[in-house]
Amino acid sequence: MQVYFFGDGEADGRADMKNLLGGKGANLAEMTALGIPVPPGFTISTAVCLDFVKEGSVSEPVQAEIMAALGRVEKIMGKKFGDVTNPLLVSIRSGARASMPGMMDTVLNLGLNHETVRGLADSADERFAFDSYRRFIQMYSDVVLHVSMDRFASRLDDMKRVRGVFEDTELPASDLETLVGEFLEIASEEYGQPFPQDPMQQLWGAIGAVFHSWTKKSAVTYRKLHDIDDSWGTAVNVQAMVFGNMGEDCATGVAFTRDPSTGQKVFFGEYLTNAQGEDVVAGIRTPQPINSSTRREEFEALPSLEEEKPEAYAELEAIYKRLEAHYADMQDIEFTIERDKLWMLQTRTGKRTAAAAVRIAVDMAHEGLISREDAIRRVDPSSLDQLLHPTLDPKAPRKVLGRGLPASPGAAIGAVVFSADVAEAKAKTGDKVILVRTETSPEDIHGMHAAQGILTVRGGMTSHAAVVARGMGTCCVSGCGALMIDEAKNEMHLGDALIREGDIITLDGSTGEVILGAVAQIIPELGGDFGELMSWADEYRSVKVRTNADTPGDAVLARKFGAEGIGLCRTEHMFFEADRILVVRQMILADDEEARRKALEKLLPMQRSDFAGIFRAMDGLPVTIRLLDPPLHEFLPHREHEIREFAKASGLDEGHVRNHIESLAEANPMLGHRGCRLGLSFPEIYETQVTAIAEAAFEVMGEGVDVLPEIMIPLVARQTELQELRQVTERAFAKVAAQHRDLKLSPLIGTMIEVPRAALTADVIAKYADFFSFGTNDLTQMTYGLSRDDVTSFLPEYIEAGIFPCDPFVSIDQEGVGQLVKMGVSKGRSTKPGLKIGICGEHGGDPASVKFCVENGLDYVSCSPYRVPVARLAAAHAAVEAKLLQSG
Amino acid sequence: MQVYFFGDGEADGRADMKNLLGGKGANLAEMTALGIPVPPGFTISTAVCLDFVKEGSVSEPVQAEIMAALGRVEKIMGKKFGDVTNPLLVSIRSGARASMPGMMDTVLNLGLNHETVRGLADSADERFAFDSYRRFIQMYSDVVLHVSMDRFASRLDDMKRVRGVFEDTELPASDLETLVGEFLEIASEEYGQPFPQDPMQQLWGAIGAVFHSWTKKSAVTYRKLHDIDDSWGTAVNVQAMVFGNMGEDCATGVAFTRDPSTGQKVFFGEYLTNAQGEDVVAGIRTPQPINSSTRREEFEALPSLEEEKPEAYAELEAIYKRLEAHYADMQDIEFTIERDKLWMLQTRTGKRTAAAAVRIAVDMAHEGLISREDAIRRVDPSSLDQLLHPTLDPKAPRKVLGRGLPASPGAAIGAVVFSADVAEAKAKTGDKVILVRTETSPEDIHGMHAAQGILTVRGGMTSHAAVVARGMGTCCVSGCGALMIDEAKNEMHLGDALIREGDIITLDGSTGEVILGAVAQIIPELGGDFGELMSWADEYRSVKVRTNADTPGDAVLARKFGAEGIGLCRTEHMFFEADRILVVRQMILADDEEARRKALEKLLPMQRSDFAGIFRAMDGLPVTIRLLDPPLHEFLPHREHEIREFAKASGLDEGHVRNHIESLAEANPMLGHRGCRLGLSFPEIYETQVTAIAEAAFEVMGEGVDVLPEIMIPLVARQTELQELRQVTERAFAKVAAQHRDLKLSPLIGTMIEVPRAALTADVIAKYADFFSFGTNDLTQMTYGLSRDDVTSFLPEYIEAGIFPCDPFVSIDQEGVGQLVKMGVSKGRSTKPGLKIGICGEHGGDPASVKFCVENGLDYVSCSPYRVPVARLAAAHAAVEAKLLQSG
Repeated sequence: MQVYFFGDGEADGRADMKNLLGGKGANLAEMTALGIPVPPGFTISTAVCLDFVKEGSVSEPVQAEIMAALGRVEKIMGKKFGDVTNPLLVSIRSGARASMPGMMDTVLNLGLNHETVRGLADSADERFAFDSYRRFIQMYSDVVLHVSMDRFASRLDDMKRVRGVFEDTELPASDLETLVGEFLEIASEEYGQPFPQDPMQQLWGAIGAVFHSWTKKSAVTYRKLHDIDDSWGTAVNVQAMVFGNMGEDCATGVAFTRDPSTGQKVFFGEYLTNAQGEDVVAGIRTPQPINSSTRREEFEALPSLEEEKPEAYAELEAIYKRLEAHYADMQDIEFTIERDKLWMLQTRTGKRTAAAAVRIAVDMAHEGLISREDAIRRVDPSSLDQLLHPTLDPKAPRKVLGRGLPASPGAAIGAVVFSADVAEAKAKTGDKVILVRTETSPEDIHGMHAAQGILTVRGGMTSHAAVVARGMGTCCVSGCGALMIDEAKNEMHLGDALIREGDIITLDGSTGEVILGAVAQIIPELGGDFGELMSWADEYRSVKVRTNADTPGDAVLARKFGAEGIGLCRTEHMFFEADRILVVRQMILADDEEARRKALEKLLPMQRSDFAGIFRAMDGLPVTIRLLDPPLHEFLPHREHEIREFAKASGLDEGHVRNHIESLAEANPMLGHRGCRLGLSFPEIYETQVTAIAEAAFEVMGEGVDVLPEIMIPLVARQTELQELRQVTERAFAKVAAQHRDLKLSPLIGTMIEVPRAALTADVIAKYADFFSFGTNDLTQMTYGLSRDDVTSFLPEYIEAGIFPCDPFVSIDQEGVGQLVKMGVSKGRSTKPGLKIGICGEHGGDPASVKFCVENGLDYVSCSPYRVPVARLAAAHAAVEAKLLQSG
Repeated sequence: MQVYFFGDGEADGRADMKNLLGGKGANLAEMTALGIPVPPGFTISTAVCLDFVKEGSVSEPVQAEIMAALGRVEKIMGKKFGDVTNPLLVSIRSGARASMPGMMDTVLNLGLNHETVRGLADSADERFAFDSYRRFIQMYSDVVLHVSMDRFASRLDDMKRVRGVFEDTELPASDLETLVGEFLEIASEEYGQPFPQDPMQQLWGAIGAVFHSWTKKSAVTYRKLHDIDDSWGTAVNVQAMVFGNMGEDCATGVAFTRDPSTGQKVFFGEYLTNAQGEDVVAGIRTPQPINSSTRREEFEALPSLEEEKPEAYAELEAIYKRLEAHYADMQDIEFTIERDKLWMLQTRTGKRTAAAAVRIAVDMAHEGLISREDAIRRVDPSSLDQLLHPTLDPKAPRKVLGRGLPASPGAAIGAVVFSADVAEAKAKTGDKVILVRTETSPEDIHGMHAAQGILTVRGGMTSHAAVVARGMGTCCVSGCGALMIDEAKNEMHLGDALIREGDIITLDGSTGEVILGAVAQIIPELGGDFGELMSWADEYRSVKVRTNADTPGDAVLARKFGAEGIGLCRTEHMFFEADRILVVRQMILADDEEARRKALEKLLPMQRSDFAGIFRAMDGLPVTIRLLDPPLHEFLPHREHEIREFAKASGLDEGHVRNHIESLAEANPMLGHRGCRLGLSFPEIYETQVTAIAEAAFEVMGEGVDVLPEIMIPLVARQTELQELRQVTERAFAKVAAQHRDLKLSPLIGTMIEVPRAALTADVIAKYADFFSFGTNDLTQMTYGLSRDDVTSFLPEYIEAGIFPCDPFVSIDQEGVGQLVKMGVSKGRSTKPGLKIGICGEHGGDPASVKFCVENGLDYVSCSPYRVPVARLAAAHAAVEAKLLQSG
């Protein structure tokens, strides 16, 4: 059998025959077999496509099968293909295993010609018939005859101009008849042959065009890029046309089996009487609610389908229940009523908001429709972002000025400011501000803290602005290249707008949109469904989820989101606080060890109180503290007046300070004097930090807090670095411990694996490490040779062109960087079986990366507080999938 | 047996018993067994050391063995240990398997006390006896009793002041006797016990001190750092003292079995009558030549040993011949004549200049003393640098002002200039100049070309200055951190000197010394021996040696040095020529593709003629051309006046140009928009370069030149990059080829493996590559996370502290980076067996790295022209060693 009939409750195919029938054909067969009233039709299998490509024609036996199937359709519909009085019209659609751009899509109303159009006019009305014919000629000419559409469009425009109307629908039947004649002429001229009038010729032409489009260049290229095999072929679906626009006894509509916005268990949909499917979507006419639960303000007093056509509605209700039960998921369905007869055109899994996804999954599990495992898998972890941050009301109008990268989710509304200082000052007086910078640097931290949202011209998803903003849970749009800032004038240009300091804009962190003025916001509530789903997720996952947090506030927030410890506490962020930066700079610009130690002594109590606060917040949970990492230059003043002020405050010569700052500049700071290299050059810095950690730990222990400190040495490339600094760390800690002999505490001492060499030699490094933490941000930068501060100049193009499948800073590059992670794990554990291993790069909050970590035996992932629930759910996904794989 | 006697032609030990006897003990045994007159003695084995460390004492059976051996020594010497009239004195020395700092070194004259010193005075003279005693007390107090030396030294100084003399030797016997008394008092006071007078007690004390020093902290640390096993232990050598300073019938000297400067086959040495060994070395008295072939100007009319003591000389001559024949290498020997009796104190392989090494190796092979394989292995490839560059006369006085890194070998003398422009201008008028810069950038290239030598404040062995200078064969000292340049005043400070523009300095590229004034130079000649040795080397090696050359001149030079092709031709160096940089900048700062293409069109003929010149120079040999690699920012003007001039010359707005330049700045240019990323962003740049290559290739083919072009795509991280650019390259080449249908030529198209990810995914990348070339400079930077432009701030400290065993940019890091190279080779060839693979990083000229490349199956190494002979010899070394390993 090569041609699979479906109709009237009978179907030759099944849902699992996608390879032969394509996705669409298999689904039509499935629906029909369920007893759903689907317009009858048949699917010509993919095998026929492959023959056609080879032979250039459809074989005679297949032609016979097609004719037989067509006969069965005629019988069900009570119409005849090509009949002058009661013509059957059909649609032709392609349908491969996977949906595929580049393939011929759809021809509607096939079967119309000079004669059959009359029959259609008789059974409906003239206007409808000629409009259908006109559309058919246009579509067929386009996708089958490959005739340019220009002349059709301009002819239609001329006609509308002559008649002084704006919409096609305003043209009367006579004009449409005239147009049909002209269109046929145009098509014949352009095509070089008469437009086919014989319906069978039309049908063979359309079938051939679908098969032929399989070999079109755009389709071939798409398949190559997406690893789709040329030998799959495409199927062709031929289906009887039904019309919702033949009169008042006709209608068309779309519905969801549950509310797609809230997830509430109500049947929900809209329809239009005497209309085509696209009219509902296009919104030219206000649709009517299908029932009372759909009725809302905007529908005013329109009657519902339930009221207008109770029989059809009752049938629809029975059908939707069957469909949802059958597919065990919320369905998005399309229906048409032709002369009071209900036809189902399509059913598919319905798109939904994150909130709805959570509610539907939890409800369906309670209803026994799906398992808890299914419920977990039904919610996309990434979508949880929507639930945790305020979002913009999708219904509110927005004047989009431009678009950057959706660097940190949420929405922010505020007055534009162009400097961190102004941001801080304005925020203190209660103003809500958006900080706009070419790019941010650690010097902007106080302004970023003060701002509602951050907008930058440069920088990718993992630029400084993006990383810091995500850590803070602040909305951020980065890399908005079209934005031009004129700092001198305190204004900026974006799109066609000139925006001055103080003007209000809105950022959409989920889309990257920059919007003029204030847009209405929706503040989410984490309902009971969310909590229930997360508790199910936690039952399944085994990998721990920690957070990257630098302040007690972040730690408290992350703990609320379910963090099971801190995986990365960056000590340097503490250095930027207004009261510390002067001392930090004095420490860095010290001319000798003595001066440096003096500055460090001043820093010690500040660091100690930071750590104590974090330890208290994380009572009973491990806290990994990374010793100083970034190049010292980052902390230094760079503007003239800052240098002057610093020199004055420190009693130093201004020229000397300037030279010192200059001498610390580096060509590639990312690969320069930073991380453990600082610890080895200036052991007193690390000693002071460890002393602060130890003193804080013993202090809070005295208060009864359960402290689990883990000290992490960054940027180790060779085991000797860790070996040496482990000693420095142990000595400094022991010195403090000696003053608290009544309390027993010794920290774990481990290292970041973030330099490729560390992964390659993890077996030797593991000798000196109590734990590993993969710093996949830097590991990605070095493995790819890609500075994340500089990627905006080419990475977006790269991704668009498919050179890179995705941004490797967003989702871990399993093929390349992943090899180093695997190597690090297996080599590390070859030396120390059971070595504790985690990840603290940005990837710790990316679902695909979390899955990768679970599969490779990591003990924990760590991510910014707002990503903790995402990681928890992603980890559960990975666990459930692993279980499914194991069980078969 | 635990105690191994040697003396009078008999020895219990042998040369191959180093593990038990240590290096020194085994050699003394070997010499004695050869019948060489070595002062008799015995070696206490390393096993005794381990017992001593455990038990804290020497066991009685071993004590008995020591006494027996001591008896044999007494018998041979005709003296008795502790005897009042004719006392035997001994030396005590440690001797482990490998020489090891931190161990107790030497005690001489042991056996002297109040009584024996009289016996010594009777048999020699009083002065000698008390001076020997004084020295013994000092040495013993220091290394055995661990008494501070300060009081001894100040007492000696006092005595000299009182007597109004400057040298110890000017003090009479009576003063020395007084000093002895005082020294004994000081030692007793400081030690807390009387200084041991019993010779046996002295002996046990010294033996114990040697063994004890095995557990000293400095020795333990040294062992840990150098992977020396604690269980090796050290041996102790006890040997009879002989004296060359007991009278006119005594003498002491050193000699080489061949001339260590030239390698000439003549016996060559110096001696002093009535003197100690250190007197010859110290140069207080002018030594005498041992024979006429040693006689040179500076010896004037001094009689030779051959004339003064013909019998001893005849014996010495017989001995040196036996030693050279036995060790089959040039020996450095020390001898003492005590009362006309010749004693050999030491023989070891003699140090020699590179020229001598070559001559000796070739001569010995001709003499049949060694094989050609041995001859090859006798010459250190690194030392060839000395032969290829002018060197400073080692005898010429030099006032060293400071020291940097020996970044590019050779010597340079010239007037200091502080800018590339001045360097160029002065060089044009015939002046020889040294370019001094804080660091160099591509903008200094013209000045570097013009200079005799280059001196920089910043930058390591692979900084821009170092790499470019080595490529040019220009002497360079980089990273001279003590140098302070005051550009405004056109002067610099180094050490205690103020040097103004125009002052003459000398650079020693082999030591990194910066010297005031002009130092005499030696211009090397590549004699026949060198050529002969290199031809032997070429017979053994299988790996090809290519060169990194960017100009026809470099190519010609490298070919003279034996290069078998070009492994890396950097197209960007051509861009800096004065007549091109304007066009290059117009190309980079083009506002659209059209403007860029216009600039590229102007560049095309320039590039074409460069390539044609290189192809002609490399007739018959492969030429690998790398397409544009560095970040575009490097080519741009940065100083205000340059920007102004550029804008004017290009008819562009100055502000616009400045903004454009600013927008191209990157945080980490090394990891930014460069390499193939440029080729993908601006395909027209690569198209133009490939067109120039193709046009040049067909042009010279027409002249009958055999062209083998290989086009190399840099910085590939993912296969898609190469896949895409391979197509760009093929298309551009084919376009030119279509105009030359009579000539058949298609280039190889390959890629650098320089990003860690490329090595990790070499199997996929190999699909699109005809060859791989490891760019180990960048691969090292990224694998280590180490920017070579920024390493001076910590790498020297790192190496000194043993954190890194060596500079990974000088010798390839086999443990880390080497893993990626191995992976790249095996994965690449798993996809394409026999894939051509080379290396074009700086490592290609480093012997250890060349060996690594040979061992890992690379087809070729490529290095700067002056390193080609080094690589050829290193490759032969590797081949010979592999052969030796195979044959057992």
